[in-house]
Amino acid sequence: MNTMRATVFQGMNQFEVQEVARPRAGPGEAVIRVTLTTICGTDIHIIRGEYPVKPGLVIGHEPVGVIEELGSGVTGYVIGERVLVGAITPCGQCHACLSGHQAQCGHGSGYEAIGGWRFGNTINGAQAEYLLVPYAQANLTKIPNELSDEQVVLLADIASTGFSGAESGGVRIGDAVAVFAQGPIGLCATVGAKLMGAALIIGVDGDDTRLHMAKRMGADVVLDYRNTDVVAEIKRLTGGGADVTIEALGTQATFENALRSLRPGGTLSSLGVYSGKLQIPYDAFAAGIGDHRIVTTLCPGGKERMRRLMEVVRHKRVDLTPLLTHRFSLDDIREGYRVFGERLDGVLKVAIKP
Amino acid sequence: MNTMRATVFQGMNQFEVQEVARPRAGPGEAVIRVTLTTICGTDIHIIRGEYPVKPGLVIGHEPVGVIEELGSGVTGYVIGERVLVGAITPCGQCHACLSGHQAQCGHGSGYEAIGGWRFGNTINGAQAEYLLVPYAQANLTKIPNELSDEQVVLLADIASTGFSGAESGGVRIGDAVAVFAQGPIGLCATVGAKLMGAALIIGVDGDDTRLHMAKRMGADVVLDYRNTDVVAEIKRLTGGGADVTIEALGTQATFENALRSLRPGGTLSSLGVYSGKLQIPYDAFAAGIGDHRIVTTLCPGGKERMRRLMEVVRHKRVDLTPLLTHRFSLDDIREGYRVFGERLDGVLKVAIKP
Amino acid sequence: MNTMRATVFQGMNQFEVQEVARPRAGPGEAVIRVTLTTICGTDIHIIRGEYPVKPGLVIGHEPVGVIEELGSGVTGYVIGERVLVGAITPCGQCHACLSGHQAQCGHGSGYEAIGGWRFGNTINGAQAEYLLVPYAQANLTKIPNELSDEQVVLLADIASTGFSGAESGGVRIGDAVAVFAQGPIGLCATVGAKLMGAALIIGVDGDDTRLHMAKRMGADVVLDYRNTDVVAEIKRLTGGGADVTIEALGTQATFENALRSLRPGGTLSSLGVYSGKLQIPYDAFAAGIGDHRIVTTLCPGGKERMRRLMEVVRHKRVDLTPLLTHRFSLDDIREGYRVFGERLDGVLKVAIKP
Amino acid sequence: MNTMRATVFQGMNQFEVQEVARPRAGPGEAVIRVTLTTICGTDIHIIRGEYPVKPGLVIGHEPVGVIEELGSGVTGYVIGERVLVGAITPCGQCHACLSGHQAQCGHGSGYEAIGGWRFGNTINGAQAEYLLVPYAQANLTKIPNELSDEQVVLLADIASTGFSGAESGGVRIGDAVAVFAQGPIGLCATVGAKLMGAALIIGVDGDDTRLHMAKRMGADVVLDYRNTDVVAEIKRLTGGGADVTIEALGTQATFENALRSLRPGGTLSSLGVYSGKLQIPYDAFAAGIGDHRIVTTLCPGGKERMRRLMEVVRHKRVDLTPLLTHRFSLDDIREGYRVFGERLDGVLKVAIKP
Repeated sequence: MNTMRATVFQGMNQFEVQEVARPRAGPGEAVIRVTLTTICGTDIHIIRGEYPVKPGLVIGHEPVGVIEELGSGVTGYVIGERVLVGAITPCGQCHACLSGHQAQCGHGSGYEAIGGWRFGNTINGAQAEYLLVPYAQANLTKIPNELSDEQVVLLADIASTGFSGAESGGVRIGDAVAVFAQGPIGLCATVGAKLMGAALIIGVDGDDTRLHMAKRMGADVVLDYRNTDVVAEIKRLTGGGADVTIEALGTQATFENALRSLRPGGTLSSLGVYSGKLQIPYDAFAAGIGDHRIVTTLCPGGKERMRRLMEVVRHKRVDLTPLLTHRFSLDDIREGYRVFGERLDGVLKVAIKP
Repeated sequence: MNTMRATVFQGMNQFEVQEVARPRAGPGEAVIRVTLTTICGTDIHIIRGEYPVKPGLVIGHEPVGVIEELGSGVTGYVIGERVLVGAITPCGQCHACLSGHQAQCGHGSGYEAIGGWRFGNTINGAQAEYLLVPYAQANLTKIPNELSDEQVVLLADIASTGFSGAESGGVRIGDAVAVFAQGPIGLCATVGAKLMGAALIIGVDGDDTRLHMAKRMGADVVLDYRNTDVVAEIKRLTGGGADVTIEALGTQATFENALRSLRPGGTLSSLGVYSGKLQIPYDAFAAGIGDHRIVTTLCPGGKERMRRLMEVVRHKRVDLTPLLTHRFSLDDIREGYRVFGERLDGVLKVAIKP
Repeated sequence: MNTMRATVFQGMNQFEVQEVARPRAGPGEAVIRVTLTTICGTDIHIIRGEYPVKPGLVIGHEPVGVIEELGSGVTGYVIGERVLVGAITPCGQCHACLSGHQAQCGHGSGYEAIGGWRFGNTINGAQAEYLLVPYAQANLTKIPNELSDEQVVLLADIASTGFSGAESGGVRIGDAVAVFAQGPIGLCATVGAKLMGAALIIGVDGDDTRLHMAKRMGADVVLDYRNTDVVAEIKRLTGGGADVTIEALGTQATFENALRSLRPGGTLSSLGVYSGKLQIPYDAFAAGIGDHRIVTTLCPGGKERMRRLMEVVRHKRVDLTPLLTHRFSLDDIREGYRVFGERLDGVLKVAIKP
Repeated sequence: MNTMRATVFQGMNQFEVQEVARPRAGPGEAVIRVTLTTICGTDIHIIRGEYPVKPGLVIGHEPVGVIEELGSGVTGYVIGERVLVGAITPCGQCHACLSGHQAQCGHGSGYEAIGGWRFGNTINGAQAEYLLVPYAQANLTKIPNELSDEQVVLLADIASTGFSGAESGGVRIGDAVAVFAQGPIGLCATVGAKLMGAALIIGVDGDDTRLHMAKRMGADVVLDYRNTDVVAEIKRLTGGGADVTIEALGTQATFENALRSLRPGGTLSSLGVYSGKLQIPYDAFAAGIGDHRIVTTLCPGGKERMRRLMEVVRHKRVDLTPLLTHRFSLDDIREGYRVFGERLDGVLKVAIKP
């Protein structure tokens, strides 16, 4: 058995599940048999050719699995253990990692790394039967027995990213927080703001299903931008502006509204990935009345981050399974991409079971 | 009507509700008609002569009331508004306040202030029909209509203090937190840890009623020190030690256990008021395995703090009314002191209605 | 003597030193006899009509003086004491001040305040013989005897602002810091970065006098943008990008270069005041490789800030007097505006002696 | 050549330079030829049997050297490069390291680790001709050509520890800082406080040589505890207490004085290693007037920390070579231990050249 089935990018708008070589673990690496993964919005960008990766690459970066093989030097694990691996795989030993910027991991031995995001970007990813995990000592996190694959799979990327929107924003007890866009990451940012003690959480979107889910995940108020002057309403609800706004889409409009909705001295925590130039309006920012902060954050990874997030789920602070609206087998992944990519049937996240 | 009824300290173990002069508001001050207040553990220390105040002082520092009189220069308020006033009344304009240490307020004009705690300490307090509020501009917080007096009265001191135990401890999403002693402040620290995203909260006490209440207020696990090796059990539950421990009693035993229960690099947030010398055991602290932090915090006050805490209650993040187990009129306050001081009848907090 | 001489804005490009009513101190206020002040770049914008203030306003916001009159309720000061007053005058008692955002002071009683910057903006300013100081309790800072007016006058605004560029940027021991533009504020940012332990400080400008002064004030390397690819050179000198960049001019070019010169995960601390829309380039920011921070800061004020900065000067950590390149009497202030506004004769800061 | 000369601990008060097996690098490890090292106060404790290590261990933890051998998987280095290695050698890949507590490194594969301090504690140390470096990828830091061995050797431990005293204390621009004890670590804490912008630095000791060196290294005022009421004098000099005090000795007296010298709300940063129980006096701490912080810190290590500290030296912010008062060859190390252990001849630090 030297091959496996995997989702391979072949060029703009071309991808297929096909038979490829099965990975083997070198020193410091591990191979896991993937038991659950998902499709991320970034994968859609990749498939469409909007984010550049090399043809032939296996896509996907949200892996849950079982340890199949351990390379030399990886200690404290045994074959057969269930593990979660974050979307970001820091080496832990480069200057960036040692200064706490694990998402900016600069270790490059053998990989063409752009920071710590490697799976489905610079090395083969998780939409496959098997996955090679680099820097395995820093990146394999055992899953507590009482947690199912579905309970943890969203922690690898969207929950880690969404929560970090609230963390980087410095949400404090009693804050008013507005979250712009209630897709999967925005919903997780909503959950994160609530976890950190925000008093008032305002969810903004233009899709009824998502606004409904926002309330279920913790938003106190939801605003539909299709029929509401969002900035004015946030200022009214908060008595002058939100302490923290979180941008979770990546457009000029959401960014600008997030900035205009801040109180003087507030923080805009930006999670979206923008294309083209962003404009910061003079009258919201940087005028004499400034002192805002704009913080951008990449998904935090590494096994300690994953452990912490699983503790949050294990102690029932958070249940993200309602976001898993659809499930497909690896062989049916094209249908998963279609449903997710075209936002059909109220889809939020699609689980893929190899 | 130049007099009012008030609870007056007369000397060790002597206090009485008696008729005293009713206060008048000077420039920058206000007088409120007290509609609800409580008895604090510190008041018990005062009555017993364990904490020194001058005979003749009106006791109490947790006031809810209605504005009766506004001194010159106090703007933005009107007679008749319902207000909450924090136990700490910062001036906002001294060096300590302007550097963010409002509890250490050094303004002394006309008061013999020891930091920002004045009510029932260096000036007359809240267990009375009327209360003079110094630095009123910085200390009167309007109560939203939808909140009752009972919903907010505990914010003035114990919730502000208890939450600050979690805040000063730097609780983060996913932390394991142990709270030593589940009296009113410890229970609020438990609530605070949960508000800030702790994954696992361990409540420690030796009283069944309080352990029961700890679970109700958010503890995942409660430990009874009467029959448990608390340090060993916390290390077992957390896989090596808590990220943050909060001490909420003020004894050598709770302090030492809180320190020994930390993981390497953890933080002990101390809220208790100790008498005599505290010993820090060599083997828990400061040995080669060091790098702990010990943080002590006074109750944060001021109108912005009170506003934030009321927002937390208003948006239903927290309900502290279960802690108000007993209610007395001002004329029956001696009975309230007896029940609270001797811990009768499962008492947690006693409300006093003038 | 009910009048005084003062620099009055009369409309676009019109201003004059004329006789106006001398201020009197109301409750909580003070009047100082101004002994030294300066002209700020913002004053140039005001004079030119680029920043809107009401005709009739006295300009200027960097006052050193002697207490002439104390309103009721201001304690701890005596007539005749020498004082420094910050450009920002927080009330200390509003929600913004009590939450630590003193530059965003929201107190409005009697003033049309836009945040805490009042002098020469919403109330009469310092280029006059006398100055009314609002919230005097929070804003009068005694000057130690051993310090001259010239040693402290720049602390009121440009040093407080410039140092805060380094403080808000979170400069740490060993950081590489690049400061874009070496005008008065940029030079103070350079000093601030050095004060906080930066290892390598790179000063950028296109003016020989300013580059020379940058070296004198602590820059290790200076780059002349007229003949250098600044971004490339900073990346080379720092091995990949600066930890912190400070923008101290307020143009698209400096902002964009400051952003492009950051290492992954670095912080851009922005002090400049921009006009029109700022563009954030996609490829520097917010791409998959993000996690930058952009922080803007207003000049911190209040008497505690001024006290701290004077301590820094008193203990000879910093000497800013080389920045005072020109001196004029109040009656000659038009000449001062000409020299400063047209950047003649290597001018950096102009001192005005009423 | 399978042996080397090394300083071996043999039991209480017994140690000798003898021939031992020369180390070989396994996977992920490196061997360096030591070109300079020193004797640390902790080594004196070890030699005297006051800190337990196993007989047969090679002592020493401050290594400068040249790469002799690289194990498999260590990339980006070549044989012959000059490197500095920190006293603490984090693995970078365990839960403690990945959460930023590198000094608490919990990786144990093959070592009996107590946190990240391994050299001369749980594995062979640096007072030898050759040294095996674990987790070499995370711990080898190239030395810039322009820096000599003597310029960097003190960064491995005492400068990293001393500076961290100021860093953990949160020293800010304008702070008043008092440093208790001006031995090598205290002197480095003095340097660290100055690097971070303290306005007033007060050095305390009872030894004329050290008080003299304290002034040379940046203290503004020195106090001799033999003839001064140190607490009273610090309160007088600071107008009420220091913002930060740093304890750098490890005795009850220095700890207690450091605590009593704080202003309300100040921070005590403790670097000393205490033996026996420490007492925290009730009246200084934890009384109603509390809100102090006590922070303890272990020496930060790892190659990024070493790189940053070398940048500080390279750009001439700091020169620590005056602390290297004596030099011995490895064969004469017993004499070095005598001079250093008995504090003869004004010794501060002793350099050892293998």
